[in-house]
Amino acid sequence: MIRRLAIFGATGSVGQSTLDLVRRSRADWQISALTANSDVEALAALAREFQPELAVIADPAGYHGLASALDGTGIAVAAGADALVEAAQCPADLVMAAIVGCAGLAPTMAALATGTNVALANKEALVSAGALMTAAAHASGAHILPVDSEHNAIFQCLTGASYDQVASITLTASGGPFRTMSAAEMARVTPAQAVAHPNWSMGAKISVDSATMMNKGLELIEAHYLFPVGLDRIRILVHPQSVVHSLVEFIDHSTLAQLGAPDMRIPIASALAWPARMATPCAPLDLACIGRLDFEAPDEVRFPATALCRAAIAEGGGRPAQLNAANEIAVAAFLAGRISFPAIVDIVRAVMDAEAPPVPASLHDIFTIDASTRAAAAQRVESLEHA
Amino acid sequence: MIRRLAIFGATGSVGQSTLDLVRRSRADWQISALTANSDVEALAALAREFQPELAVIADPAGYHGLASALDGTGIAVAAGADALVEAAQCPADLVMAAIVGCAGLAPTMAALATGTNVALANKEALVSAGALMTAAAHASGAHILPVDSEHNAIFQCLTGASYDQVASITLTASGGPFRTMSAAEMARVTPAQAVAHPNWSMGAKISVDSATMMNKGLELIEAHYLFPVGLDRIRILVHPQSVVHSLVEFIDHSTLAQLGAPDMRIPIASALAWPARMATPCAPLDLACIGRLDFEAPDEVRFPATALCRAAIAEGGGRPAQLNAANEIAVAAFLAGRISFPAIVDIVRAVMDAEAPPVPASLHDIFTIDASTRAAAAQRVESLEHA
Repeated sequence: MIRRLAIFGATGSVGQSTLDLVRRSRADWQISALTANSDVEALAALAREFQPELAVIADPAGYHGLASALDGTGIAVAAGADALVEAAQCPADLVMAAIVGCAGLAPTMAALATGTNVALANKEALVSAGALMTAAAHASGAHILPVDSEHNAIFQCLTGASYDQVASITLTASGGPFRTMSAAEMARVTPAQAVAHPNWSMGAKISVDSATMMNKGLELIEAHYLFPVGLDRIRILVHPQSVVHSLVEFIDHSTLAQLGAPDMRIPIASALAWPARMATPCAPLDLACIGRLDFEAPDEVRFPATALCRAAIAEGGGRPAQLNAANEIAVAAFLAGRISFPAIVDIVRAVMDAEAPPVPASLHDIFTIDASTRAAAAQRVESLEHA
Repeated sequence: MIRRLAIFGATGSVGQSTLDLVRRSRADWQISALTANSDVEALAALAREFQPELAVIADPAGYHGLASALDGTGIAVAAGADALVEAAQCPADLVMAAIVGCAGLAPTMAALATGTNVALANKEALVSAGALMTAAAHASGAHILPVDSEHNAIFQCLTGASYDQVASITLTASGGPFRTMSAAEMARVTPAQAVAHPNWSMGAKISVDSATMMNKGLELIEAHYLFPVGLDRIRILVHPQSVVHSLVEFIDHSTLAQLGAPDMRIPIASALAWPARMATPCAPLDLACIGRLDFEAPDEVRFPATALCRAAIAEGGGRPAQLNAANEIAVAAFLAGRISFPAIVDIVRAVMDAEAPPVPASLHDIFTIDASTRAAAAQRVESLEHA
């Protein structure tokens, strides 16, 4: 059976991995829409190859370039934020939501509200707007299929189970490049050291989040929205090899875990083919070759970010959106050499301590919290610089 | 909903663990039958506690003792092999088949043929009569719920999946007490050394099977019957800590694993409550405390038993029953100090090389192969003793 797939963020890393899998089983898929932020040339090339009904460039300035590049192909062309939302409302069996950042919120929300299943790779959707997203999915009957390797692992382990059968969910964390470093050493680390992730090839922002363990804290927030078993039942376990992607313990104390090579095409394929499976060209897991897997409790003294995230989701409301926005500004400041590594979490905490955000009732409220928090965090960065 | 449970082998280790779980959620269960081999006193005590409709003692000599012990309780009493089969045909939601050895074959087969789901802890049922058992289950629509920790792990990992989605199944093996020993050292090991299993508390026979790795070979045969993915897709991986009980790799190269403390009540609870879950008093898995899991490829030179089992199941027919019977005699001879440790597998191989058994069409054929193989193996033991 041919399935209709729309890919939001087609030119990014997850989008490209998705299309790599589609390319290998081309006859199984009809691409309904492809979107990109601003890379007209890359989007046009993908559109010519995959022949979607619609290609959307988020940046309105890209419209004419895309229209002329696809002239005569029969592919409809659109541009702008509203066009993204309209594309998300078009009929599809599955939407791959792989836009990075808050720009992905509105189209993801639109797809879920329409009742279309969403393969969710857009972290901000759940971190900032988790309650709204899951409520929209619940109301329409759409399924959220997590693509993040940890949440995809949990989703797989939960197959056939109900939440009242779950004793605990454990998110594994590599511990990042500074796992064994003292607090004093961490005060002196450089952006170059922070972006060198031991297991996954990732962008700079998420690499820094992995180094502070804020990434795991954000994943804790995502897990809380995706898998409502109770916050006290969601745990974090440091596992430096990143082979076990997460675990679910049931009330009989039987634990299921998902394992695999660090290749994003594995969770992407799991979401694309759900509830079935599709072949991937990824490397099989060879545990005899890997030899050894290590596990240790996280150290929330040296890595205070996860406790901050737990407090944010425990309070709920606008707190996770605030935390996420403050962290983005702080990480950017660290990457620009403006603040120290420990100052990232200090700034997030200070912003959160200074003001409690309102409880958001709409995406518009989320965007308001996001904007005001970014301004507040930027101010903290500046005053820290001139201190 | 109250479920009707019959327990065959109620006084043994698995039977007792099953009743321990039943005792903790007494209101959920109605015990339809309890059986034991020869321990009248223990069976009578359990019957008085759990009030089954029927208590069966396999040994006919135990009939009068059991009848007088249960006089006035209203519990029906029976004895003998035919009574076991009749008890297996009585209405029940689940039969726990925990009789050790070939004595368990006929009642297990009877329950499956009746269409009753069977929680299977009787290894011989699948090793010796796997084709007949699975055919009977298939014909009646009964489910076989494996209780062996490895097969239960695989069963759990396969929830919601079809066999064509499976790339491989990996049985983990502790490697036994002689995992790091040279062949020369193994030639001198004593029964006392062989029965000291590093992780599980087990009987002498199965401990020796673990030391030779014949146990893993027998489990390979069981797995082949339970999970027909093709013999070349079933693998063995040495994992000394016995925390990961087995793994299933799917065609997308996503791998699911089941983990847990080495407590048989976990897989028993999984089978009892399937497809739901029930609480157990078992220790939760604490990977941070365990710290480290190791994996290595099995060494089929030092441990040739698994290759022998693979050859037996590849040939099929009566070979697995023959292998199992020869191994039982050889292990008993080793435990009695009559033959060396390496001679166990040598005898099994010699018996198999000497004669190809017929393809069994019934349990009667299996029993014939079993009896003639035991005689042949006993002869080999004797000639080795007097060599």
